[in-house]
Amino acid sequence: MTNGISETDGRLTAKGRAMRDRIVQSAAELIFAAGARETTLDQVRSAVGASKSQLYHYFGDKDELLCAVIDFQASLVMNAQQPELGAIDSIASLKRWRDKLVQLADAQGKIGGCPIGSLANELAGHSEIHRRALAVHFDHWAALIEDGLLRMQASGRLGPSLDPKALSTTMLTALQGGLLLAKLQRSSTALGAALDEIIDFIERNSKPPKPRPQHPDNRKR
Amino acid sequence: MTNGISETDGRLTAKGRAMRDRIVQSAAELIFAAGARETTLDQVRSAVGASKSQLYHYFGDKDELLCAVIDFQASLVMNAQQPELGAIDSIASLKRWRDKLVQLADAQGKIGGCPIGSLANELAGHSEIHRRALAVHFDHWAALIEDGLLRMQASGRLGPSLDPKALSTTMLTALQGGLLLAKLQRSSTALGAALDEIIDFIERNSKPPKPRPQHPDNRKR
Repeated sequence: MTNGISETDGRLTAKGRAMRDRIVQSAAELIFAAGARETTLDQVRSAVGASKSQLYHYFGDKDELLCAVIDFQASLVMNAQQPELGAIDSIASLKRWRDKLVQLADAQGKIGGCPIGSLANELAGHSEIHRRALAVHFDHWAALIEDGLLRMQASGRLGPSLDPKALSTTMLTALQGGLLLAKLQRSSTALGAALDEIIDFIERNSKPPKPRPQHPDNRKR
Repeated sequence: MTNGISETDGRLTAKGRAMRDRIVQSAAELIFAAGARETTLDQVRSAVGASKSQLYHYFGDKDELLCAVIDFQASLVMNAQQPELGAIDSIASLKRWRDKLVQLADAQGKIGGCPIGSLANELAGHSEIHRRALAVHFDHWAALIEDGLLRMQASGRLGPSLDPKALSTTMLTALQGGLLLAKLQRSSTALGAALDEIIDFIERNSKPPKPRPQHPDNRKR
């Protein structure tokens, strides 16, 4: 068990899991700064202070490590939008999510853009396994936005003429393009303006919800 | 004048210009397929069949060649949207431009995405000179969209409550994100849906123009 992998069943020990996590995190940081294809396994190894044999215990090759980095960055990107993304149920909550995205762009997106958007741009044309992995995360992202819009529709806060699926796609494309422009223009202005326009569209076509009817029991009294 | 550069004034001869154009075009193709940082000057030289000294006659270094590739791809991207982009003056013309963008994505964007969007994603964090060059082209792109929306507003075809500048930003972000998703999902569906939503927003908030009053001379008759 010297390398953190149990000799009896191949599962990771706590020590092994910690080392694996450190490798993925270091690789993610190097790749965010320099790109996936520019980053070598030797650079990752040296950043973590791991031996070659340790690295290969956890990841058969660079492609496998890249898959882990994709999942790691997707988790970070999704978690960074919480609780706002999961709490979308009104125009006000959409604006809070929009503000969070602009904050995130200001914090690091002006340099590196969207961690998984950048990976998608870099890898989609070169590696089918990574393209598919990234596509799943983007589908999940769109679904989380759509869930919020469906909650709004269920409570009468989204106009019946609006399409939650098409709107979630529009928001995801605008935020990805907005994050690309944030990186290009060193400013989150375009991202904020685009999300504002789409929220304005939703607001113009959605009436405020009717006040809830009183509970029958209350009316009786 | 054997290398295509006039010995007297340093300007390019016709032959020199043709060779320079071939170098830029080959470099653009290699970079679109493999990325700017993966592509070497030797690969470009070999694709064009040029000698090292010929290459360095036209471009002092790879950065200079990359600047020429950025301008070349930006011209192609802008020209490929014509005449539709320059003809925006109504909802119908916006839809024709939208259709052209989807066609372009179907033709090559499903593999390589947007040629200048991909360069922006790859280079913005690594090279200040290329980031600035690309930002100018994106500003120009947004301005061309805005020009069309201003024409619509001048003729009463864009609702007075709509903001041409914010809308042009929204369209540019959505089309960039849509082209990224086209590459990631191997489908232009998201691009088309996002542009449809934004055009729908414009249409809902713009009344059709009033019929033109007849010319005074005609009324007299």
